[in-house]
Amino acid sequence: MPVGLKAPGKLQSIDGIRLSAMHCGIKDDENRGDLVLIEISEGANTAAVFTTNKFCAAPVVVAKQHLAKNNPVRYLLINSGNANAGTGDPGYQGALACCAEVAEQGAVQSTSVLPFSTGVIAAELPVTKINAAIPALFARLHEDNWLETAQGIMTTDILPKAISETIPLEQGGTVTITGIAKGSGMIKPDMATMLAFVATDAEIEPTVLTQYLRQVVDDSFNSITIDGDTSTNDACVLIATGKSGESIEAGNRAFLEALTRVFQHLSQAVIRDGEGATKFVEIEVQQAVSRDDAREVGFTIAHSPLVKTALFACDPNWGRILAAIGRAKIETLDVSKVDLYLGEVCLLKNGLPDSAYREDLGQKEMDREDIRITVKLGQGEASAMIWTTDLSYDYVKINAEYRS
Amino acid sequence: MPVGLKAPGKLQSIDGIRLSAMHCGIKDDENRGDLVLIEISEGANTAAVFTTNKFCAAPVVVAKQHLAKNNPVRYLLINSGNANAGTGDPGYQGALACCAEVAEQGAVQSTSVLPFSTGVIAAELPVTKINAAIPALFARLHEDNWLETAQGIMTTDILPKAISETIPLEQGGTVTITGIAKGSGMIKPDMATMLAFVATDAEIEPTVLTQYLRQVVDDSFNSITIDGDTSTNDACVLIATGKSGESIEAGNRAFLEALTRVFQHLSQAVIRDGEGATKFVEIEVQQAVSRDDAREVGFTIAHSPLVKTALFACDPNWGRILAAIGRAKIETLDVSKVDLYLGEVCLLKNGLPDSAYREDLGQKEMDREDIRITVKLGQGEASAMIWTTDLSYDYVKINAEYRS
Repeated sequence: MPVGLKAPGKLQSIDGIRLSAMHCGIKDDENRGDLVLIEISEGANTAAVFTTNKFCAAPVVVAKQHLAKNNPVRYLLINSGNANAGTGDPGYQGALACCAEVAEQGAVQSTSVLPFSTGVIAAELPVTKINAAIPALFARLHEDNWLETAQGIMTTDILPKAISETIPLEQGGTVTITGIAKGSGMIKPDMATMLAFVATDAEIEPTVLTQYLRQVVDDSFNSITIDGDTSTNDACVLIATGKSGESIEAGNRAFLEALTRVFQHLSQAVIRDGEGATKFVEIEVQQAVSRDDAREVGFTIAHSPLVKTALFACDPNWGRILAAIGRAKIETLDVSKVDLYLGEVCLLKNGLPDSAYREDLGQKEMDREDIRITVKLGQGEASAMIWTTDLSYDYVKINAEYRS
Repeated sequence: MPVGLKAPGKLQSIDGIRLSAMHCGIKDDENRGDLVLIEISEGANTAAVFTTNKFCAAPVVVAKQHLAKNNPVRYLLINSGNANAGTGDPGYQGALACCAEVAEQGAVQSTSVLPFSTGVIAAELPVTKINAAIPALFARLHEDNWLETAQGIMTTDILPKAISETIPLEQGGTVTITGIAKGSGMIKPDMATMLAFVATDAEIEPTVLTQYLRQVVDDSFNSITIDGDTSTNDACVLIATGKSGESIEAGNRAFLEALTRVFQHLSQAVIRDGEGATKFVEIEVQQAVSRDDAREVGFTIAHSPLVKTALFACDPNWGRILAAIGRAKIETLDVSKVDLYLGEVCLLKNGLPDSAYREDLGQKEMDREDIRITVKLGQGEASAMIWTTDLSYDYVKINAEYRS
């Protein structure tokens, strides 16, 4: 079960956004949604970032091509259960055909529709089933359907991931942000995760919107990992409908902080619902020469199967953390300057076992569901935070049985 | 159980090498050896490579310091069950104390003794138990004890790993090579694995011996991975006693090939006996711009938990291999030039699903114990071979329960 994650609380609708979700037959279970439509009002601005995986999926290729046309984005069509990746030209044509159908029904240009897919790689997209369901999707569009939409994009997720934030502005008035995400395995996003959709009723210029997106993605989705496997389908979309009439300029601190909270909540929810997760692990690397170095050390710890199995076993076998730090690909490491903490408990001081450490102190920290590992490299001022899970029997089971 | 690995066949003794193994009390099970001594005759040359992990263990530090003195290496003292890593100054002093005891008993300088340890990280080395056993170790030294020695260095290994090769020389005469290795987890050697000891009765100059060692280590121990975790204790030692009277110069092809066979057998035996392994997987990456690129792609596939769990499940879910190739950190990748094979079965041709592929063909390849994945990048002439295992329930079980 997800680690310290509950079903979403009340979600605020965003003026200018209507959504619908249904079962069209991609997933076997008729009770599970597998097709979602998000309608974006005229005058809204939309920014998006996508996976850096070079074998990116057909919908990612099409979405990037459509965005490049600079037409306003009016519809997002998202299916779950099929990734439409590794599907060659038929997959590409299938994504185009779905966009054309939405464009037809919505009376917009085809390039105003962005497609997204998540699920099994290298399976043919059931275009006929999807297109047959599109009229029903349009008929159901409603601004209060955020939760159904969050459920409709799930694959191996146990719980939907969604959150709302309302921000009072200095100039008076408020803006609201609501976001949803999915993802549970093949999670090591690199520019964005698979999939997150966040909307606000604030009015934000396109270039500023893109800046906000890149800034918050770096400290949220680009700082989580479950298994180190970057998906072929990662995408993260931020929409500003402008319907609140409140304008947000670059560098608005209150807005940036709220947006960061939304993105961190969603990305951490992905970790808490990680495949087979029994622990939520926060790794903070401090005193590095650069942020890249800090992230490299953090990710090396987070990806170590030996660290992850020790976390699963609640075993304070911190030698494995030390071995991971030692093999991280950073320029220099002076082990005699490294401090290591588990929660508040010091394990290693200046590279040597701390004299006050006792196994029962480490055990107490390891028994928690939420675990914090702090590494101080003693080299500089840069730091980074990485979030990850343990490696359990259930991770193996889920991924061994995924297609069966 | 190990994948296609049998107990070693008959091992040839090497003139100039005597060995002994016993239980001194580091491991709980009295029937398992945990302390080993290897005696090297006067006039022999010894080359060694060690882990690149910056948190290297105390015995690695001491062994490197002793080698730097350029005294002939006369004794190797190896304990299993305790890594003497992350143990600070007491660990360092403990390693020195054990060397001093061996030097005393063997009437050699302390710097002629190299210490090696393997086992739990961050536990105190039981120096008293070790030193108390050293007289008995000396008393038991015998040239026919290679198998007992291979057993005495095991930790989570199920089977000992050892092999002999006899090479007829062009000039007439023969030389013999015998080697042993251990290792089953925390395996992603980077310069050497934990632990391998290979001896030959050939006469080889020190610089030439080091060249041979570096050359064969690259295509054997440095090309295997179980979990991507580079150990703090990796070490690989090559000894040339010269007792056959046959001299081997640089570039002797027959000797190099035999030495490569020995190293590849030992390194592949480590994989076949990998923790929880049910598959032996050979990944060949061809047509890369550089060997480094080929290795990066191979290791990215080999380390992917999703590829590894699919291998465990015998699931030809090759989309996961494709996703791993797509995220490998290489300069350029033209996905439209990539071919992918499982055994002889083509999955992907020029980046697209092969038209002749059927799921049952892939299934037949996945059902084998020995699996071969071939990637052709279509970029250049360089290639690399990587060997790895799957990720099974038992890997998680073994590593969750390691210290309990």
